[in-house]
Amino acid sequence: MEQNSNILKYKHLGIYTQNENVVYMRKDCHVCISEGFEALTRIRISNASSSIVASLNVLSSDILLPNEIGLSDAAAKKLNVSPNDTLYVSHLEPIESLGHVRAKIYNQKLDYNAFNEIITDIVQGDYSNIHLSAFITACAGNRMDLDEISDLTKAMIGSGKQLHWNKKIVVDKHCIGGLPGNRTTPLVVAIVAAYGLTMPKTSSRAITSPAGTADTMEVLTNVTLSSEEIKTVVEEEGGCFVWGGTAQLSPADDMLIKIEKALDIDSEGQLIASVLSKKAAAGSTHVVIDIPVGETAKVRSTEMAKKLQNHMETVGNAVGLNVKVVITDGTQPVGRGIGPALEAIDILKILKNEADAPNDLKERALLLAGELLELSGKVKPGTGNQIARQILESGKAYEKFIAICKAQGRFSQPVLAPYKIEIKAEKSGILKRIDNRKIAKLAKLSGAPKSKSAGILLNAHLREQIEENQLLYTIYAESKGELDYALEYKNNHDDILTIIKK
Amino acid sequence: MEQNSNILKYKHLGIYTQNENVVYMRKDCHVCISEGFEALTRIRISNASSSIVASLNVLSSDILLPNEIGLSDAAAKKLNVSPNDTLYVSHLEPIESLGHVRAKIYNQKLDYNAFNEIITDIVQGDYSNIHLSAFITACAGNRMDLDEISDLTKAMIGSGKQLHWNKKIVVDKHCIGGLPGNRTTPLVVAIVAAYGLTMPKTSSRAITSPAGTADTMEVLTNVTLSSEEIKTVVEEEGGCFVWGGTAQLSPADDMLIKIEKALDIDSEGQLIASVLSKKAAAGSTHVVIDIPVGETAKVRSTEMAKKLQNHMETVGNAVGLNVKVVITDGTQPVGRGIGPALEAIDILKILKNEADAPNDLKERALLLAGELLELSGKVKPGTGNQIARQILESGKAYEKFIAICKAQGRFSQPVLAPYKIEIKAEKSGILKRIDNRKIAKLAKLSGAPKSKSAGILLNAHLREQIEENQLLYTIYAESKGELDYALEYKNNHDDILTIIKK
Repeated sequence: MEQNSNILKYKHLGIYTQNENVVYMRKDCHVCISEGFEALTRIRISNASSSIVASLNVLSSDILLPNEIGLSDAAAKKLNVSPNDTLYVSHLEPIESLGHVRAKIYNQKLDYNAFNEIITDIVQGDYSNIHLSAFITACAGNRMDLDEISDLTKAMIGSGKQLHWNKKIVVDKHCIGGLPGNRTTPLVVAIVAAYGLTMPKTSSRAITSPAGTADTMEVLTNVTLSSEEIKTVVEEEGGCFVWGGTAQLSPADDMLIKIEKALDIDSEGQLIASVLSKKAAAGSTHVVIDIPVGETAKVRSTEMAKKLQNHMETVGNAVGLNVKVVITDGTQPVGRGIGPALEAIDILKILKNEADAPNDLKERALLLAGELLELSGKVKPGTGNQIARQILESGKAYEKFIAICKAQGRFSQPVLAPYKIEIKAEKSGILKRIDNRKIAKLAKLSGAPKSKSAGILLNAHLREQIEENQLLYTIYAESKGELDYALEYKNNHDDILTIIKK
Repeated sequence: MEQNSNILKYKHLGIYTQNENVVYMRKDCHVCISEGFEALTRIRISNASSSIVASLNVLSSDILLPNEIGLSDAAAKKLNVSPNDTLYVSHLEPIESLGHVRAKIYNQKLDYNAFNEIITDIVQGDYSNIHLSAFITACAGNRMDLDEISDLTKAMIGSGKQLHWNKKIVVDKHCIGGLPGNRTTPLVVAIVAAYGLTMPKTSSRAITSPAGTADTMEVLTNVTLSSEEIKTVVEEEGGCFVWGGTAQLSPADDMLIKIEKALDIDSEGQLIASVLSKKAAAGSTHVVIDIPVGETAKVRSTEMAKKLQNHMETVGNAVGLNVKVVITDGTQPVGRGIGPALEAIDILKILKNEADAPNDLKERALLLAGELLELSGKVKPGTGNQIARQILESGKAYEKFIAICKAQGRFSQPVLAPYKIEIKAEKSGILKRIDNRKIAKLAKLSGAPKSKSAGILLNAHLREQIEENQLLYTIYAESKGELDYALEYKNNHDDILTIIKK
C-alpha cells in the first residue's frame, strides 16, 4: 500500500456547507475501495502545502469521475486548491483532543491544556458537526465551573488573531442579547472617544435580528475596513465603528455559535467565553457589559442576570479584563427605529440634540458611557454620567462621530424607504406589553437588514395611555411585496403590542 | 407568498451521506432567495405523498440548474422520488421534541412520552447529526437513571417493526462487545432448537470486527431471508440464524449507534436500550446476555460488568423481558478461527464432536445454552448445562443445525483461503497476553469479513508454555496483497501476542 496510490484529481463542485469540511469521492474510486472508506468516514486530504480533515460523502453519479475528488467550499478554501490539482487522501490519525471531550461527557473537570487542545483542533476544522455538538452539549447545563469557563476563554483568546493598540487602557462595550432598536454603541464610541479614551469597536452584522451595529453604521459610513485602515482610524480619532468579520478574532467562537444556534441553546459558560474571548482578543482592557432583562429579552429574570453578572466579572478578572456588568430594562425596544436606516436616524437626532430625539436611547447610552468612563479610572466614581452628558449635549460627541465616519471614508445621510403603512390602535387603553421577538420579526419581514431603509418606526411606549386610532408604529419597506409580507404577519399576530382597557 | 412558488424539479445527484437527509439547491434559486434559506438551514421537502426534513447545502456550480433540487440518497429514498418530479420546499416548523433534548441537557429527568416524541422524530429523520449528537451526549455520562433507560427502551421498541411468534416462550442470546472467534450463537441456536424451544435468531454483520454471526453463517447457508421466509423456517425448525438487517427492528438504534461510533463513546444507558429494544422488538421473552470481561474486551472490569448486569436485568424486567446476564472470561479469543470460514470450521467440528474441536468455544456455548434452558423454566435449575451437553454430544444439535441450514436454502462446506503464512514463536516462554483488538485488526487486514475465507487460525492460548519456533497462528488471505498487508501490520506490532520468559 504505497502512499502515492491514494492520489485523486480535484474538481470544483461549488457545494457550500458553511464551516463543515466535506469531501466527495466516487464509490468506485480506487481509494475508497482499497482503503475501505465509507460515507461519513473522517479522512485527511493533503496537497503539497497543507492538509485538512473532512467527512466523506460517497457519490454514485457522474458528477465526478472515479479518479476525481470534490470538496465543500469551506474545505477547498482551507486547502487553497484549483481544478485539476492532485490531492492525496489518507486515513485520519485519531483526534487526541476528543479524549478530553469524552472526559467532559463523563463529568470530569477539564483544565486549560485540555481546552486549548480542543479549541486548536476545532479551529483547524478537525471536528465534525457531531463532535462540535457533543462538546457544546457536554459543556452546557452548568457543567463548567468558573475555572473551566476561564480556561476555555483563555484557550479561545489564543485561537485566532489578537490586536494590540500600544495603549494602557482600551475600552469596549457589549450588549447580551440585543433588544430591538437598542443601538447605543455608536453613541458610546463617540462620547468616550471625544473624552480621549481609545475604543476600537468592532461590531457584528445581524444574524437573526433586523439590524446589527455594523448594518446600522453602514448606512452612515464604510464599515468593511482592513486591519491597517482600522489602525489608522483609531490612531487618528481614538475610536471606530467597523464590522468585525474580517478580524478573525476568536474564530472557534463563530463555529461554536452556529452549533448552539442549531440546538437553540445558550450555554452560560459558552456565552461568557464567547463574549470575553472576543473582547480580550480585540486588545480591550476595560469592558462594560449591558444585560437587558425582560420577559421577551434573552435574559428573562433579574436573578439570572445577577448570576451572569457575577460570573462575567469573575471570569473577566481571571483572563485579565476589567469587566463591569450593568443590568438594564429589557421589557421593550429602545429608541424609535428598528432597522438600519431608522436606527441611524435616531442616533443622529441624539447626537445633534434635536428636540424629538428618543430620550430612552439617549439615557441608556449616557449610562453605559458613564460606566465606561468610571471603569477606566479616568473619572471619579459617580461623575461618569454627568461627564458623558456634557460631552454629548455640548456637540463634541457629534463632532467626533462625524470625524470618525469621515476617517472611515464617508459620511452619508440615512434615507427612508418608499413604501410605508401606519398601524393604528384599534381600541383605547394602556400599552401593557411589547413582544420584542415579534416586533423584531416584523422588521425582518419588511426587509431589514438587507433592505437598509426597511423596518419599524415605533411611536408608543410601555405603560402609555393609548387612544383609539392613535399611531402605534409605521412599517417601512423597499418593495410593495415586502410591505405586504410584513402586514400579513402583523394581521396574523395580535400580540405584538398588547393594549389593555383600564 | 403563495406556496406553489416554492416548487423545484428533482435531479438525481447520487450523493450518499448514510442516514442524513441533505438537500442541494442553487444559491441563486428563487426559493433560496425569497425564503432567505442559507447553508445548513433545516427545511421541509414534500411531494404529493410524503415529506421529509433535510439540511440545506447551497450550490454555486452548474451541477444543478436554478430551478432544480437535489437530495442525498437517504432523503431521495425516503421521499421515493424520480428525476423531474416536482418537489415543494417550505420552512421547517419547530421540532417540538428538541425541547425535551434541551431539558435533558439541563439535567431534567425525561419520561416515556418525552423519549417517545424524541425517538419518533429521530426515526422520521427530523433530527440533524447535530441534534442526534446532542441527544446522545446529554444521555451519556450516567445522566439517565434506570427509569429513564427503561422508558427510552420502551420508546425504541415501538419505533419500528415488531415480530410476533404465537409462542409463550421465545428465547434469544446476545454478547456485549464481541470477542474474536467467540461464535457461540449458531451452537446455542442448534442446541435449544433441538431441545424444542423457539429461537428466531437475527444477527448482525461485522461493523468493525473481522466477522459478525451473519457473516460466519453465510459461509454455511443463506442468511438474507424475507420476513415470510424467516417465519417458515422458524415454524418448521424452531430456530434460524439469519441476518437482521432487513427486519427494521428498533430503527432509531441504528441511527444512534452511528453517532456513538463517531464520538467513540459507549453510553451505558444507550447500550442497554439498544440491546433490549432489539430483543423485545424481535418478539423475545427470555434473553441470556453474555458479558466477556477482559483488559482488551469492551467491558474491562468485573465491577463494571456486575453493574451492567444489575442494570440490564432491572431494565429487562421493566420492559417485560426475562433477562439473565452471564459474566464470562474476555481475556483472549475463543475458539481457533477468527474470520467467517475459519469460525464456521470451528462450529462444525464442535457439532460433529470431532477430536480436535476447540473445547473453550464448546464449553462456552454449553454454558449459555444451559442458562437459556434454565431461564425458560423448561428445565430444573442446575441441570441446563448437562442437558445441553447431551443434546450436543448425542449429535442432535448437529442434525438440527443442518436441518435449519437446509430450511434456509442450502448447506455448504467452508473452504480455506489459498494464501497463508505461519507465524511462529521467536522465543520460548509463557503466553502472557493476547490483545483482542490487535488480533481482530490483523484478521481484518487479511481480508475478513469481505473475503470469507480470510482470517486468523490461532494455535496458542493464554498461560500455555510456548517453545521457540512453535506455531502461534496462521494468517489466511485470498490474495497475496492482503497477506502482505496483514504481515506488515504484524511486523510493526510485537504486542499482538506477548510471551514472557519464565
